[in-house]
Amino acid sequence: MAPGWRDRLRRSASRIETSPVEMAYRYVRSSYARLINMASGNPDPSIVPVEELREIAMEVLGAVGYESLVYPDAGGLEDLKKEIRLYMAREGVQIPKDYEISVTSGAQHAFKLLSELLTGEDVHVICESPTFVETLAPLKLNSRVHGVPFSSGRLDLGRMEEELRALGPGSALIYLIPTCHNPTGVTMREEDRRAVLELAEKYDALIIEDEPYRAFSEYQPPALVSLGSSRVIYVGTLSKILAPGLRIGWIAAPAELAEAVSRLENYDITTSTLTQHIALESFRRGLVDSTASALRAHYLRKRHLMEEALSDHMPPSVSWEPNGCGLFQLIIASGFDAEAHLAEAIRRGVIYVPARRFFVPEGDAGSIRLSLGPPSEAEIAEGVRILAGLIAERSSS
Amino acid sequence: MAPGWRDRLRRSASRIETSPVEMAYRYVRSSYARLINMASGNPDPSIVPVEELREIAMEVLGAVGYESLVYPDAGGLEDLKKEIRLYMAREGVQIPKDYEISVTSGAQHAFKLLSELLTGEDVHVICESPTFVETLAPLKLNSRVHGVPFSSGRLDLGRMEEELRALGPGSALIYLIPTCHNPTGVTMREEDRRAVLELAEKYDALIIEDEPYRAFSEYQPPALVSLGSSRVIYVGTLSKILAPGLRIGWIAAPAELAEAVSRLENYDITTSTLTQHIALESFRRGLVDSTASALRAHYLRKRHLMEEALSDHMPPSVSWEPNGCGLFQLIIASGFDAEAHLAEAIRRGVIYVPARRFFVPEGDAGSIRLSLGPPSEAEIAEGVRILAGLIAERSSS
Repeated sequence: MAPGWRDRLRRSASRIETSPVEMAYRYVRSSYARLINMASGNPDPSIVPVEELREIAMEVLGAVGYESLVYPDAGGLEDLKKEIRLYMAREGVQIPKDYEISVTSGAQHAFKLLSELLTGEDVHVICESPTFVETLAPLKLNSRVHGVPFSSGRLDLGRMEEELRALGPGSALIYLIPTCHNPTGVTMREEDRRAVLELAEKYDALIIEDEPYRAFSEYQPPALVSLGSSRVIYVGTLSKILAPGLRIGWIAAPAELAEAVSRLENYDITTSTLTQHIALESFRRGLVDSTASALRAHYLRKRHLMEEALSDHMPPSVSWEPNGCGLFQLIIASGFDAEAHLAEAIRRGVIYVPARRFFVPEGDAGSIRLSLGPPSEAEIAEGVRILAGLIAERSSS
Repeated sequence: MAPGWRDRLRRSASRIETSPVEMAYRYVRSSYARLINMASGNPDPSIVPVEELREIAMEVLGAVGYESLVYPDAGGLEDLKKEIRLYMAREGVQIPKDYEISVTSGAQHAFKLLSELLTGEDVHVICESPTFVETLAPLKLNSRVHGVPFSSGRLDLGRMEEELRALGPGSALIYLIPTCHNPTGVTMREEDRRAVLELAEKYDALIIEDEPYRAFSEYQPPALVSLGSSRVIYVGTLSKILAPGLRIGWIAAPAELAEAVSRLENYDITTSTLTQHIALESFRRGLVDSTASALRAHYLRKRHLMEEALSDHMPPSVSWEPNGCGLFQLIIASGFDAEAHLAEAIRRGVIYVPARRFFVPEGDAGSIRLSLGPPSEAEIAEGVRILAGLIAERSSS
């Protein structure tokens, strides 16, 4: 490329951050050794209903045939949108009457589209700190971001109000993962949900509720979107329940926003018609519901194993909060540099995601996100043991 | 939504145009009658290898299993990228040594990503007039667009140079569909390709070469990307060969651009892992090649039928150029308003895409794009007959 174009590309590319999750994946891809994968957000291999999805794909390509292979409709298959609405209701998520569903290519695509429609120089994004660095990334492209501490299962509501007051009415987009939060695995209690919603009303803010993990939770306070306000835009996904490789998620939003989302989707046309039909048939056969109920007990057992392994092996410099639900465990290894020692961890057979950049502003260099998805039960214990050894060895006191 | 947010949404949504293709599709979706569909860009149902894709999906979900259902790698499956490179070479498209492939969720996704990386207030987009209104849409979001007349199979090179000179060096992104152009079905001859490339060199412009239809062409001049310059970014897709519902396309670009594309893809993560594996297996089994060679004779027959039907039925106010290849036929019905009378055409059983907005600036209101994809051979004759009747009846002389 010519120098002027190269400069232009560098300027636009410099705004794109490479997430620590993606960086960790690159190690996994380039590694030939068998790694204990505590980095990836993929669901447990024993939970993903591969054989049932195979049968469903055969059925779809047989019975629907050509129509499952044509261009997708903007906004998603009508029948799939109906099934998503019913599924949300069965999970206890009631959306306002004037809301509509837009099917997206997974939740990440939803955040990209919402970013293009709702962020800008005059909008500020407020998120929990820590939060999920990858979903936040598109929201950060055009807007400044402010983190509000979320720890010991509580959102700092005083700080939230300070931020909202300082920004002034009508200028904040609040991004939250209230249920089985990524990376902490903590569910926001109902009183905090109601308080955030009141603040949103008071300061004319919008809320984006990111809820991939509702099915993981034993304790299910109402979704923010169910609390009677139309200030909440809800993002759901089949990635953690059925399979992320299908790339099926959705936005539930006021009709005028849903209409804009579907028009904007016509600019990328990314959502596979085939995987939409597979998702539709999975709903109809009850596969989404049955997988959702099976995974709860499964991940609960894994969380207990994780808790046990952490207690057994970690040196006193490492702290963590009990993981209530979800796919991840956050630990803080004080005096340890999680990014600097990732390569050595991989040499020893375990990979994790350094989580310093999950905090806004950046957090402790010893922050580590551990996934409960890919590792088997035996690997959880072994992975934590290896990591504990490395931390003990490489931490400054 | 609160009034301030509604206003903000309206501002951002006002930049999103609804394409005439999407508007026509909406009629198809809301219609209960059987329509002769001359609007859609979907491939011919008898060409899409549904049964083979069903077998391949079974094979993938059996043999690859869980790994075909996990999150996709940014930039696409390595093995799929290799197969795409080999396929391009078999089709005679040689890419420079330092080029890399990025898999996208179809070609439209490629244009969305390229728009985010390469357009801006200081960049002007130059396209053929007419051009494909949907792929142009994302390129127009941040840049002004200038149309250069493309008719009788010739690009107006004098006008192209005038535009480039007026814009000054380093500021033009040239978007072209040189092979089996949409909507005219004409292939740009080799001397014009070389001339455009020289102009791009002279004025330090980049070229995006959109080539979904190479397999359709009996006459195959070299792709622009094969002419030895690294100023050309090539976009390909399986949508017109295998099936658009898979959402598999690609960008071939200099390594630094490919790297930026793959990082930006991590902001939407839209490309299904499952359909990437289906595409990979389709390449390996030779299904892409065999479908590509089968479709040529098939669409050639349909084009002859279209030509015959137009000659037999259209009133003298209608003009068209012989369609050399591709999926579409453009006709200009002088004195007819294609948008105003679309609803009546649908009532009479035929749907088309009004093509006024395919021209830059907007063209004759009587411009109509007719698709050779969905209609059967009998429907082509019947559709043209109905449309000719309507045009004869409703044209101002």
